[in-house]
Amino acid sequence: MVVKVYGSVDASPQRVLACLVEKEIDFEIIPIDLFKGEHKDPEFLKLQPFGQVPVIQDGDYTLYESRAIMRYYAEKFKSQGTELLGKTIEERGLVEQWLEVEAQRFHPPVYKLVVHILLASALGFPSDPKIIQESEAKLGKVLDIYEERLSKSKYLAGDFFSLADLSHLPFNQHLVADLGKEHMIRDRKHVSAWWDDIGNRPSWKKVLQLGVFELPK
Amino acid sequence: MVVKVYGSVDASPQRVLACLVEKEIDFEIIPIDLFKGEHKDPEFLKLQPFGQVPVIQDGDYTLYESRAIMRYYAEKFKSQGTELLGKTIEERGLVEQWLEVEAQRFHPPVYKLVVHILLASALGFPSDPKIIQESEAKLGKVLDIYEERLSKSKYLAGDFFSLADLSHLPFNQHLVADLGKEHMIRDRKHVSAWWDDIGNRPSWKKVLQLGVFELPK
Repeated sequence: MVVKVYGSVDASPQRVLACLVEKEIDFEIIPIDLFKGEHKDPEFLKLQPFGQVPVIQDGDYTLYESRAIMRYYAEKFKSQGTELLGKTIEERGLVEQWLEVEAQRFHPPVYKLVVHILLASALGFPSDPKIIQESEAKLGKVLDIYEERLSKSKYLAGDFFSLADLSHLPFNQHLVADLGKEHMIRDRKHVSAWWDDIGNRPSWKKVLQLGVFELPK
Repeated sequence: MVVKVYGSVDASPQRVLACLVEKEIDFEIIPIDLFKGEHKDPEFLKLQPFGQVPVIQDGDYTLYESRAIMRYYAEKFKSQGTELLGKTIEERGLVEQWLEVEAQRFHPPVYKLVVHILLASALGFPSDPKIIQESEAKLGKVLDIYEERLSKSKYLAGDFFSLADLSHLPFNQHLVADLGKEHMIRDRKHVSAWWDDIGNRPSWKKVLQLGVFELPK
């Protein structure tokens, strides 16, 4: 069964695609053009009432929220491809802890940087320098805690790669590639080594080859 | 083994306590006084570097982030107490989807209401009527989607109570008890019936008996 992934090739769907590649699961991308508002079409809202990507369809099973989709496939195909949830219930607990840290602490400030640096200039709305400054300061404090953690274990949840690391790939990529904030990663020795490791995984290279986050011209 | 729960008796620790009661797990509360800044003490930061509650200690295992702690105990004691993750991998996928909806869509606006209605008046900082208005509008749209969902299934993830419902208890309680926003639940027939159901569970009554969210006098 080929998994249908509704999404544009941007951050949240990329998180799901990286997971599917790691788990060796075949998928097909159904493009949803956010800039044309296709995520607010009535037909799409039947799949995802909040009007957001990604959504997957797998036979007659439909699921949304990128981190929920990743957990589903990591559990369903536990013994296929890369183990992404740890080997024990205690390891999974730590994977869940760092997945929550990614969603609740890392994502909000880095997402504001994307909105006010990348989207503002592309879509022509005014970016707010104060929000950029505050978001960078908040993100810096989060990355200081990552630096401390990664000085003690190779990956966030322990000495094993997991969904917690994988979930950071799309916005780490934005930091180094198009936000002009690579220094936030490079100035922290262990965060920098972690990014060199996870950002060079074949799964992430493959996702990037599918196309980059393309803004309207 | 008695689980130590570091927390004040407020929203996020309450989520964990309700889960422990449902799973019939003994716990002991170690009070952390947020108003005295005890969550920023160096000793506490060794347990939780972001300086937030709750944290649990279970023998030599330490875990933080309320939703991660709930998932850990729901899985570790799967066959003890109430089943909270669904019976199949597909059901768990939907539990994870609605847990993400709670964390990403429901929580941000309702948390802003708590800050600008409840905490502002108690702590004497200016509340922002515009943020209150915008947050109520956002939350209303989220609850409209809940109303549609709950017209088709008794609980969020399906016809079974789960972590996805349980995770809403503390802030639903704020809406009806001290934010003056009970109408947001009562004006929606199926959301109202859902709250009457989950808000009257013995586990939640027991958590409320442990003490309410006490603001400094």
